[in-house]
Amino acid sequence: MMGEFDLITRYFKRPASQKQPEGTVTIGRGDVGIGDDCAVWTPTPNTQLCISSDMLVEGRHFLSTVSPEALGHKALAVNLSDLAACGATPRAFTLALALPSVDEAWLEGFSRGLFALADLHNCTLIGGDTTQGPLNICITVLGEVPQGAAILRSGARAGDDIYVSGAAHASGQIERVGQARFALEVFRGNISISQNDFDFDFDFARRRMERPTPRVALGVALRGIASAAIDISDGLLGDLGHILKLSNVGATVQTNWIERTHPQAVEFALAGGDDYELLLTAPQDQRDAVQAAAQASNTRITCIGQVTAELGLQVLDATGQPLSQTFASFDHFKST
Amino acid sequence: MMGEFDLITRYFKRPASQKQPEGTVTIGRGDVGIGDDCAVWTPTPNTQLCISSDMLVEGRHFLSTVSPEALGHKALAVNLSDLAACGATPRAFTLALALPSVDEAWLEGFSRGLFALADLHNCTLIGGDTTQGPLNICITVLGEVPQGAAILRSGARAGDDIYVSGAAHASGQIERVGQARFALEVFRGNISISQNDFDFDFDFARRRMERPTPRVALGVALRGIASAAIDISDGLLGDLGHILKLSNVGATVQTNWIERTHPQAVEFALAGGDDYELLLTAPQDQRDAVQAAAQASNTRITCIGQVTAELGLQVLDATGQPLSQTFASFDHFKST
Repeated sequence: MMGEFDLITRYFKRPASQKQPEGTVTIGRGDVGIGDDCAVWTPTPNTQLCISSDMLVEGRHFLSTVSPEALGHKALAVNLSDLAACGATPRAFTLALALPSVDEAWLEGFSRGLFALADLHNCTLIGGDTTQGPLNICITVLGEVPQGAAILRSGARAGDDIYVSGAAHASGQIERVGQARFALEVFRGNISISQNDFDFDFDFARRRMERPTPRVALGVALRGIASAAIDISDGLLGDLGHILKLSNVGATVQTNWIERTHPQAVEFALAGGDDYELLLTAPQDQRDAVQAAAQASNTRITCIGQVTAELGLQVLDATGQPLSQTFASFDHFKST
Repeated sequence: MMGEFDLITRYFKRPASQKQPEGTVTIGRGDVGIGDDCAVWTPTPNTQLCISSDMLVEGRHFLSTVSPEALGHKALAVNLSDLAACGATPRAFTLALALPSVDEAWLEGFSRGLFALADLHNCTLIGGDTTQGPLNICITVLGEVPQGAAILRSGARAGDDIYVSGAAHASGQIERVGQARFALEVFRGNISISQNDFDFDFDFARRRMERPTPRVALGVALRGIASAAIDISDGLLGDLGHILKLSNVGATVQTNWIERTHPQAVEFALAGGDDYELLLTAPQDQRDAVQAAAQASNTRITCIGQVTAELGLQVLDATGQPLSQTFASFDHFKST
């Protein structure tokens, strides 16, 4: 059986040239990566660090049917999505991995998916840990923002517009909130593909669930423009609730942007979870700047509501009438 | 059942006054702790960050018999020990936690043990994640060293002395490498306490295993003095091997400092693992400085050998003859 040290060296220690993609200085002179007690890393002067940890557990955050490559992608993507919500530029990450056994095919696929996304964002693996145990993936990611430029949940103000991201895919299919939940319900057997009266394509939706796209470029482009942001992991309304609570404001949300081809379409869009789109607020006088940021980052963005001084969250149906339906946000300690 | 957000707030979100112990500015102006997508944190100018992640799994890193308070201590201690080995000053950490269920008594004890050690080192919990799953604790710790001052594994040079730490305990009992392994073997039923012909006290040894002391003050005091360092998690000789390999040198290690009251005493001291003492090298002209650093940090330190230009590791018995016994280092993917 391959030991811990061999495993680290073989799958996660990369030659120096690969650790330092052209044009970036993720690991600087005198810095140390994998192989010492700590990674030693030099932050860029006059920046603040943005730090996020996410732990992924089978059955909670991914299904046993997911490919190791997609899992490697998703484990990093959900962390990069947190950086995106703060407007931070990804710099480095650590990986801690508990594995039931050393499965080389699994490790090869996992590390391939992980590094493909890491390289796309010039985000360097600088350290971590491996151990034997029930499958568990914990990534801590480090990003940077200029001093004071982080986009927080607490900055929404009455009168601000509320936006959600989602981009046209290369194939012409449209990325929208709710698709990940749709794919999950197909896997759970609650929705039959053959009787699919959603307008979602299953293969496309499954890819959205298994390989979410962190909106890093959009987040960076929104620095100085967005007043607050969060990434949608628990469901649009639940995550909006975090912004409203920390900003001490309320909101009105329209739903006329949701394609109503199925009774659950509104529920999946507003409370589906696992979308990893950005939900953000911005002052009305920043409307042109928001659209320019979306265009510059090649990301679709839709205005879905307004922030109100009055506390509480009002959801309007397609005709503009208050919606009576209630939505539960995703909670990893409640069965869903 | 208590939900994820309640759980975070109740056990891990502390009032601002507790997050900022008197005399420290761990979270600076404009910085953000728990409750946003990322923690936002300002590094000290002209420092480098030292970063380490450790993942703890039941049966591998702790026994089911351990108290939640001791586990909270140990989960952070093993990470602080990595900082100590680099000579870094602890600053902040993230905690990701998978729990089979929300057990409030467990959480109360775990968070108490965790924060007691964190406060001792002015190390602030700035973020993390909680989820349901098989018990798994993943901590990522951030420390700081002045630019270029990190003690690395690669700095040992031929002629350097080799030292191991260990301090007189308040009760007069002596902390030594090998005690944690002794306690583990008692728990495993391989050693009977009643027939204990080690000179270890079981309660003391058990405390060493369950509540290791990270040698943070010693590590910081050794900046500019030690040429290389590592913390002993896998066993003294195995960990020394990492220094030798990365420094491209060999070593001779004496064993006349080990109390030989039991046939396994030498094995436990040299290959026991889980000690979290510091193993370090320093030039001979730094002998006074090493002892001064030990005294300043109130830590016992023993010279146990010398670095050699010739590769390989030679272990000498009490009479100075080469020892034929071989020792396996601890590997989390091999059964031990």
